[in-house]
Amino acid sequence: MFSTIRKSLLATTGIAAMGLAFSATSLSAETLDEVMARRGLTQKDLLAAAKTYTPTGKRDEFIVFSSGGQSGQIIVYGVPSMRILKYVSVFTPEPWQGYGFDAESKKILEDAKVDGREIQWGDTHHPAITETNGDLDGEYLFINDKSAPRVGVVSLHDFETQQIVVNPILQSEHGGTFVTPNSEYVIEAAQYPGVLGRGFAPLSEFNEKFRGAVTYWKFNREKGRIEPENSFSIELPPYTQDLSDAGKLVSDGWSFTNSFCAERYVGGIEKGRPPFEAGCSQNDTDYLHIINWKKAAEVANDPAKVKIINDHRVIPLDVSISEGLVYLVAEPKSPHGVDVSPDGNYIVVGGKLDTQASVYSFEKIKAAIDGGKFAGKDSYGLPIIAMEDALHKQVPLGLGPLHNQFDSKQCVVYTSLYVDSQVAKWDYCEGKVLDKISVHYNIGHLVAMEGESEHPAGKYLIALNKLAIDRFNPVGPLHPQNHQLIDISGDKMELLYDMPLPLGEPHYATAISAEKLKPLVRYAYGTNSRTGEKHPDAVRPGSEKIVKDGNKVKVYMTAIRSHFTPEIVEVEEGDEVEFVITNSERAEDETHGFAVSTYNVNLSLEPGKTATAKIKADKPGVFSYYCTEFCSALHLEMEGYLVVKPKGFQEAAAPGAEGQAYTKADYDKQYKTCVDTQAVIDSVVAYIVSTDFQSLPEAAALVEDATDQLKFADEAKAKAEGFAAKEDWQNATLWAGQWWQYQVKAADIGLRAKNLLDEKGVKPKQ
Amino acid sequence: MFSTIRKSLLATTGIAAMGLAFSATSLSAETLDEVMARRGLTQKDLLAAAKTYTPTGKRDEFIVFSSGGQSGQIIVYGVPSMRILKYVSVFTPEPWQGYGFDAESKKILEDAKVDGREIQWGDTHHPAITETNGDLDGEYLFINDKSAPRVGVVSLHDFETQQIVVNPILQSEHGGTFVTPNSEYVIEAAQYPGVLGRGFAPLSEFNEKFRGAVTYWKFNREKGRIEPENSFSIELPPYTQDLSDAGKLVSDGWSFTNSFCAERYVGGIEKGRPPFEAGCSQNDTDYLHIINWKKAAEVANDPAKVKIINDHRVIPLDVSISEGLVYLVAEPKSPHGVDVSPDGNYIVVGGKLDTQASVYSFEKIKAAIDGGKFAGKDSYGLPIIAMEDALHKQVPLGLGPLHNQFDSKQCVVYTSLYVDSQVAKWDYCEGKVLDKISVHYNIGHLVAMEGESEHPAGKYLIALNKLAIDRFNPVGPLHPQNHQLIDISGDKMELLYDMPLPLGEPHYATAISAEKLKPLVRYAYGTNSRTGEKHPDAVRPGSEKIVKDGNKVKVYMTAIRSHFTPEIVEVEEGDEVEFVITNSERAEDETHGFAVSTYNVNLSLEPGKTATAKIKADKPGVFSYYCTEFCSALHLEMEGYLVVKPKGFQEAAAPGAEGQAYTKADYDKQYKTCVDTQAVIDSVVAYIVSTDFQSLPEAAALVEDATDQLKFADEAKAKAEGFAAKEDWQNATLWAGQWWQYQVKAADIGLRAKNLLDEKGVKPKQ
Repeated sequence: MFSTIRKSLLATTGIAAMGLAFSATSLSAETLDEVMARRGLTQKDLLAAAKTYTPTGKRDEFIVFSSGGQSGQIIVYGVPSMRILKYVSVFTPEPWQGYGFDAESKKILEDAKVDGREIQWGDTHHPAITETNGDLDGEYLFINDKSAPRVGVVSLHDFETQQIVVNPILQSEHGGTFVTPNSEYVIEAAQYPGVLGRGFAPLSEFNEKFRGAVTYWKFNREKGRIEPENSFSIELPPYTQDLSDAGKLVSDGWSFTNSFCAERYVGGIEKGRPPFEAGCSQNDTDYLHIINWKKAAEVANDPAKVKIINDHRVIPLDVSISEGLVYLVAEPKSPHGVDVSPDGNYIVVGGKLDTQASVYSFEKIKAAIDGGKFAGKDSYGLPIIAMEDALHKQVPLGLGPLHNQFDSKQCVVYTSLYVDSQVAKWDYCEGKVLDKISVHYNIGHLVAMEGESEHPAGKYLIALNKLAIDRFNPVGPLHPQNHQLIDISGDKMELLYDMPLPLGEPHYATAISAEKLKPLVRYAYGTNSRTGEKHPDAVRPGSEKIVKDGNKVKVYMTAIRSHFTPEIVEVEEGDEVEFVITNSERAEDETHGFAVSTYNVNLSLEPGKTATAKIKADKPGVFSYYCTEFCSALHLEMEGYLVVKPKGFQEAAAPGAEGQAYTKADYDKQYKTCVDTQAVIDSVVAYIVSTDFQSLPEAAALVEDATDQLKFADEAKAKAEGFAAKEDWQNATLWAGQWWQYQVKAADIGLRAKNLLDEKGVKPKQ
Repeated sequence: MFSTIRKSLLATTGIAAMGLAFSATSLSAETLDEVMARRGLTQKDLLAAAKTYTPTGKRDEFIVFSSGGQSGQIIVYGVPSMRILKYVSVFTPEPWQGYGFDAESKKILEDAKVDGREIQWGDTHHPAITETNGDLDGEYLFINDKSAPRVGVVSLHDFETQQIVVNPILQSEHGGTFVTPNSEYVIEAAQYPGVLGRGFAPLSEFNEKFRGAVTYWKFNREKGRIEPENSFSIELPPYTQDLSDAGKLVSDGWSFTNSFCAERYVGGIEKGRPPFEAGCSQNDTDYLHIINWKKAAEVANDPAKVKIINDHRVIPLDVSISEGLVYLVAEPKSPHGVDVSPDGNYIVVGGKLDTQASVYSFEKIKAAIDGGKFAGKDSYGLPIIAMEDALHKQVPLGLGPLHNQFDSKQCVVYTSLYVDSQVAKWDYCEGKVLDKISVHYNIGHLVAMEGESEHPAGKYLIALNKLAIDRFNPVGPLHPQNHQLIDISGDKMELLYDMPLPLGEPHYATAISAEKLKPLVRYAYGTNSRTGEKHPDAVRPGSEKIVKDGNKVKVYMTAIRSHFTPEIVEVEEGDEVEFVITNSERAEDETHGFAVSTYNVNLSLEPGKTATAKIKADKPGVFSYYCTEFCSALHLEMEGYLVVKPKGFQEAAAPGAEGQAYTKADYDKQYKTCVDTQAVIDSVVAYIVSTDFQSLPEAAALVEDATDQLKFADEAKAKAEGFAAKEDWQNATLWAGQWWQYQVKAADIGLRAKNLLDEKGVKPKQ
């Protein structure tokens, strides 16, 4: 009744060619004009579509790393297509990635506990990519957690979180992460003042005992890790510190941290006091903190000049004053963004309740400091530079200036205007507005391509709008955010695309040229991806084993499509079972998952990765385990059983009956199918090798993988023939079936390679 | 030095108009041809761009609900724009939505425990929207968890999970959820066989003691909840059951569940046995289960005919046989999809290892059953219908037919071909292939618009491809999935768009006409969104309170931009603190968050919602709490302090000094600013009311909100004047500042309304 696989594969190969022929010659019934009329598109819309639409297989020009806000994740998307490519979990467990579900990543989250509390989320705010000589280099990414003062380190080699450090002294933060021009330090500034070291003092002693601070985390580039032991902090007054930026070029060695609530107001609306929002925004100015971090790093090395809080070096206020490490200058009003220009000389500050942006000159600031010219001191003794001695320009922009990003064009900066729901393009050298564009609605931060570096890339700007309201189909009371892509290549800004954010409320983002990213295709065999090192318990196929030690059972397992080895694991009620699994695939994108039914375990095993699932076999039962990734046509058959025997259970000696018995006829039939299939595979292989397939690395990789599968097929064939020689038709038939399974996988990959070659126009050589 | 707010608002209003004028008149420097040349776009690409690009503010035609696979979530996206609108958490805690972080949703996850185990993820597979008369009605959505046998219920009124039920008898499942034509029942079928009730038996007794089953969950439409007490299951042989579908029209009352591994093979590669994949796919056929669920529902009501396992009614195999509830028919080979045609008469099955799709006729099946014409019985006594007595057609399609979706065109069906990486369009009445298209790569399921209903909508098809490999910019070894949008309006399928899935591995999806969805804009004041009922602890503004009872402290709080009431909460070390917070906003999209620094708490409070954060004040300290949503220009100032006093701590009687003291001059200055600001707001209001703003519901809602803010401004003004009358300049100045804060919020909303009116061309009336 059924076609043989031979006919099938022949048919398939034929139909595949036919399918491609269809695609190449068929025409749409609808013309472009008809489509535009039907969908109500203008010529301007069509232009925007052409500037953003990215056909199958084409790549994006820039990659944006956006904070995921309260999702605790990083969102990765492409520009100009505005397609989200990945959510990378940092502070929040996420099962698809196995993050917080395998033992390796649990260790990172264990290190991320704060004062013993397990925290399963984060409020990610400001991502920063490592820099070399002031330019983004695409190696590592840092991101902070506002809710608990922590910093995560993501490797851009595999887009996985590899470290979380907990700030030893801050109660709360916001102004991180920002990197110095060679990623020497990662800056993390406090937000709501607290008692340093997370101690207690009553609010009545707010002015005396509460403090702010900035932490400089030392980054070890070679190890790709922050070194807490080589990091330090600078104590600051209890102004509510906000964003920061590191100086560059002329201002290298300095950093800038602004603040709001320099009023040091403590609310209490429940007692009839005006709320924080009133008391924290009453004054016309707050303070910009100007910090000499290079000198501070030296001072921090002198044990006499630091106090140690929770094993961490903190430079006290009096030392900062005596050593000349921290200076203040007034900045209007409840500011948010503080952004250093590409040449390092200008510091642009937006005051959320101001109508203008303030441009400070580092040259002037430096002259005031060097000349000892100060307007006075704050209540804590920090010297204050007079605003007029530091300002270059103030430029009226509109209501709610918030954050600034720089263009590749000289002197051009973009500022978000929250209340106006606009972006202003302006010249910070001359101090004039060049253009404005409305956004939808209430923009927070904005991001220009490499717009915080010494060499901004221009071209695109993204408005990170906080409210979507009417922009998208309604999905309930909780709306997506709206990131709007703006073309900044011309004189006038042009809105190109509205992109909903489906999860999390991104705060800030950073964008890098796509070609600077060179992530891994696969891991070296047996890698613990969270350390980057060889996993001590990784095994090669053939060396799988189950080791019991008291009530601990360790399963050294491999996974390849479509089976785990071992498939049956028997333990006793009460045992602690550890599955250490290595994905032995070499094929790109051949990820396997691993779940045990009714247990809180899921692994994501990319090719080469080793990860561990630990469970407590707390109840007797028979628990299926399976691959949670659709890894092949037989992925549902990639299964096994964890048998948890009741204590003292004695199994009958006799093996169970087979559900199905096979005969020599079954074996012969299967054998013939395999031989026929091989002939077809050979013809596909012959076609592929007749082309210059090695000119296409992706096709070469597929061929390599298909070759692997055929090797496995040969091994299964040998087993089948061995059992047949012993007239064990049961095993002979099933191993012949397994031989065919490998052939199907080889055929699958071979067809994919052939399609790819056709698509890319790689034809048989003459 | 600083502009007054008056100047600012005037300037803003002026500049806003200018900005819009820019947009309207400016032209792109680049022509369409230049853009196409630069980006390498063909005419066909441009047509696809025009068919998918959705300009700002325009809506999508269809909404897709896709399983999020191992992410444990539902993914919601629009067609044709292919923009992801929302991830809805079902089985996995997710902090942005507060899911698993507030007490209300924690209760759902508590109910979702399996055998006492807390499971913080799920492997979501098959979403199903409620149906009325066989058509999707957009009220509720069901989704299953393959890893632990559970079903979640999501309300499409607010896109929130409202219930999770745990299957009382299954060890593992896959074939859910599928609904009957009026959502009477939600179908959930087993996958890997187990001992019903999740008991233990050794694998040697697989054939005797392991079983499959199908559960029919009773859905109460009025309550929007599954009723476990009115649900039942049917015991099945230990074939590995797979997908299901409910009959419709002529086949209403019946359901169809297929299976693989009818071989009942138990692997054991570690012992030299062939792996599951070989033994489970050796035979040429498996079994399609044909079940009379309407009759079974009646039988289940007879206590003599069911066995009770874990308080759940199970119809045993012998009763199914004697009552004629279950029939088998052979189906080739390791099938996945089983899909009933819109007219209810055809059942299309794809066998993953077959080369053809099999079309069964319900009419023929019914005739065989009614005529008692069977080919035999399986090992468990179930009657088997001969394949030739049930088959309508078998149609060669290619390798790896997997899943089928129906077109609005008569007799047209689409089938995914996994191994071929193609979609076949074919005629299931005549049994001929109409078209094929290549996809990238290895398609699993596919979804056509309302393609499983009695009235498919046609137009679009989406290929849910499992491998992306080279389609997108690389983001490390773990790749996104690739959903490809295909235009099916013409005779030939046309590929329109590649959409990466950034989180989770979607398994299956369902798509509904966007106009059928009518989600809430806001909750009724004080709603517990997880029950849909009024929250008993919701308070109105003015009634906030802190209630202490022993070591339990309950804070009845409200949130409105930009403050919480109360702002200071003082407790003692060791207290259990419960914050019950109601968002008192009426404005759309004005969500507030709530986090307490260094605690594992985040709430998402949409307008009207009440939710609860519980923490244990385990250590003394002063913990800031704040709004985690960027809700206004002063969202950072939406803060408060949880003061956890050490046991026995006695505070000094004297209040702390204010950080900043205000004088009559400060008050007078602030007062004048407010008066000036009001004049500007009046002018904006005058402009808006001169238009027919009420013709635009979104604008009317904004004006309503602005009116609220001005009412609050009046209240703050009255307080300021009251303190001024008592010459308390401190409070007078700060309340005047608060008055101004409300004015800024009113201005923000007013400007947004004005922009919206301008965009929609609503001009002042003549």
